[in-house]
Amino acid sequence: MNTPKIRVGVIGAGFVGSALVQLLGDESRHIALVDAATASLEVVGVAVRDIDKDRPGVDKELLTTDAVALASREDLDILVELVGGIEPARTYIETALRRGVSVVTANKALMAAHGTSLSRLAHENGADLLYEASVGGGIPILRALRTSLAGERIERVMGIVNGTTNFILSKMTSEGSDYGVVLAEAQALGYAEADPSADVDAFDAAAKVQVLSSLAFGTELNGEEISREGITGVRSIDVDFARRAGYVIKLLGVAERVGEHGISRRAHPALVPVDHPLASVHGAMNAVFVEGAKSGPLMWLGQGAGGEPTATAVLGDVLHAARNRVSGRHDVPFSVDDRLESVPAGEIASVFYISLDVMDEPGVLASVASIFGAHGVSIQSMEQSGFGDEARLSFVTHAARTDNVRSTIDELAKLDSVDSVGACFRVIDGGAK
Amino acid sequence: MNTPKIRVGVIGAGFVGSALVQLLGDESRHIALVDAATASLEVVGVAVRDIDKDRPGVDKELLTTDAVALASREDLDILVELVGGIEPARTYIETALRRGVSVVTANKALMAAHGTSLSRLAHENGADLLYEASVGGGIPILRALRTSLAGERIERVMGIVNGTTNFILSKMTSEGSDYGVVLAEAQALGYAEADPSADVDAFDAAAKVQVLSSLAFGTELNGEEISREGITGVRSIDVDFARRAGYVIKLLGVAERVGEHGISRRAHPALVPVDHPLASVHGAMNAVFVEGAKSGPLMWLGQGAGGEPTATAVLGDVLHAARNRVSGRHDVPFSVDDRLESVPAGEIASVFYISLDVMDEPGVLASVASIFGAHGVSIQSMEQSGFGDEARLSFVTHAARTDNVRSTIDELAKLDSVDSVGACFRVIDGGAK
Repeated sequence: MNTPKIRVGVIGAGFVGSALVQLLGDESRHIALVDAATASLEVVGVAVRDIDKDRPGVDKELLTTDAVALASREDLDILVELVGGIEPARTYIETALRRGVSVVTANKALMAAHGTSLSRLAHENGADLLYEASVGGGIPILRALRTSLAGERIERVMGIVNGTTNFILSKMTSEGSDYGVVLAEAQALGYAEADPSADVDAFDAAAKVQVLSSLAFGTELNGEEISREGITGVRSIDVDFARRAGYVIKLLGVAERVGEHGISRRAHPALVPVDHPLASVHGAMNAVFVEGAKSGPLMWLGQGAGGEPTATAVLGDVLHAARNRVSGRHDVPFSVDDRLESVPAGEIASVFYISLDVMDEPGVLASVASIFGAHGVSIQSMEQSGFGDEARLSFVTHAARTDNVRSTIDELAKLDSVDSVGACFRVIDGGAK
Repeated sequence: MNTPKIRVGVIGAGFVGSALVQLLGDESRHIALVDAATASLEVVGVAVRDIDKDRPGVDKELLTTDAVALASREDLDILVELVGGIEPARTYIETALRRGVSVVTANKALMAAHGTSLSRLAHENGADLLYEASVGGGIPILRALRTSLAGERIERVMGIVNGTTNFILSKMTSEGSDYGVVLAEAQALGYAEADPSADVDAFDAAAKVQVLSSLAFGTELNGEEISREGITGVRSIDVDFARRAGYVIKLLGVAERVGEHGISRRAHPALVPVDHPLASVHGAMNAVFVEGAKSGPLMWLGQGAGGEPTATAVLGDVLHAARNRVSGRHDVPFSVDDRLESVPAGEIASVFYISLDVMDEPGVLASVASIFGAHGVSIQSMEQSGFGDEARLSFVTHAARTDNVRSTIDELAKLDSVDSVGACFRVIDGGAK
């Protein structure tokens, strides 16, 4: 039998790109790859910024600095984009798709901003646009949503999808350290960027929620902003309170149905019950927890980052695109459900944990409690700890509208007897909810 | 556009079959199903033993007692087999495959015994044979092994793949109860059969290991027996020792590479470190933990049984088979790697936990220790607890060949000062190993 040849171009040869090129050239995997691709895969070019940098396992002959020329090559079958960001990544991808070349990317920012239009462009040109590695590193969650769960009505997706913040929160939990100390440590280890905002302010998690939501529910990928709260306000005393109350604090990306056609998408820290499967996802691991109407709870766990795990996910997509190409097919892109409407985060009900530093004097609790009551927020439990003239009040509410909780907080902050509102975080209720 | 019609026959209308027929007929899912199947799916017949039994959501008009006639229908596109066991399930499936009809089954016993030949039969006739629901209920692990991980070199697969035994062991752990008490409770609740042997003697887990191994490594599915130890010998004192030492006892199905072309497949209880992701898989949940050379550790978690979760997995396969049918394709079956050789369980090295009841008299420990030493089994830690004239010795060994541990045990049992060998279970080492 004549084995077809599939030509692959790679843009970007950092950790992921180099690992991918090495995997594709690994002699010991050759037979398995040909089997899986139903073709023999050949890397025909690797576009990089600095052609002189040493990249172990990447043949210098393949290197080029002209990414657009690589994306436009006549003989190209699959383009792998691994530079990240919006431009010039978008130009590379559009160039390839317009020529009917299938594209594999790990670019969550670009997919969140332009995924709908890029997917359409791919479809119109008979090409695949695959992006498994954009969420959860090596975890094959996107293909599962596309295929195995295609017939399932998904109710909620919750993910620990940012390794940096999970590393920081896990360390704060295990060591009782403060956010600033652990962030500095993470930066020293290379787990956090010098400017950590993309991670700690939940931009990265929010983009991944958008990608997950598009496949789970059919929401658009068109740059719409979603509700986002970072972890910079998480204090060691919050982590400590959570532990005593049977929770751990995690940065969650959430997408869930609200009523028949509503969808809430958000990224924020939350108290997760210790017996919830997401609670035991430690360090730089990622996990995605899916609740289906009939499947019940499902969870995927794996390495959320790192060159080799991410390259494995990219490779899975390359093999899929190759099989499709050999059989003259392409995947149908995710279908947008036009009836869906984004429900603002304020309208969503949740249990909240709220921490207040107050003056320790008679009548304070009464005035605080009356403000809760006036906004319709009822209290499930309260813990008071005194220190000198001050006291810390830690509340767990019953489920309340987020709007109402926010206006409660605003009014509490204005009370003379309230020094500060230290924390206001959502609490995930129930082991499997 | 003219939507193609795909005709589905279902054999077996128990919990899974009824749930599947309801899902396929669910008006609110109709659009999503047509989208996912690229076809409109019609159930054309449901074969049952008792045609008079009431089955909510299943149209009586569709019922038939002639399963072979249903499998042989001229107009059939997909046959779903949900009766289980070897015969007559095998006849139904072969009948359909010979006519080029794709088959979806949840039958792990049949796949473990005849999966290789059935897969070949499917391929020869241009049909699909899909069996996602045969392992892990609603967890879409098999498709992930087939597709996303197709290019990965998998080193080890470990699964909690039997819900009944996990329910029993979880309850023994949380309540400190004895095996017999919890088994009776599980039987009363319908979680265990009156004859629980298939579950507690690990026949079910062993069949699922064989299915997982065939997709992860390319081992044959031809009825070869694999090493199997059940949970009937797990005592509450073993669960208790494990807890004190930082472990939980789980029934694991394991398939792993040994050297270049060796594969070890087995099902047995094991002590799992509490910080291992498999340790927090409780009750009737199932999980499959995969270690890839490049992907690192990955885990899938979900409901291992139950009509609706399992029906979701069957539905995912039906949709896949429908898409293939519409586009005139079928999946290539798993490829058998002829170079692989089964390594007998005795040759595999493992850490072991061993519990002995001995006479509490001078010199006993010395004679016990010398037997360990004579067989080359070295001891990592020992705990002695006395009661009257007797003592219990609990050992954790260093990694030792299973053969050597077994012969140590045989010789220990012959010692006059040893009353009984209470337990000899493997210990899984390391959080991510």
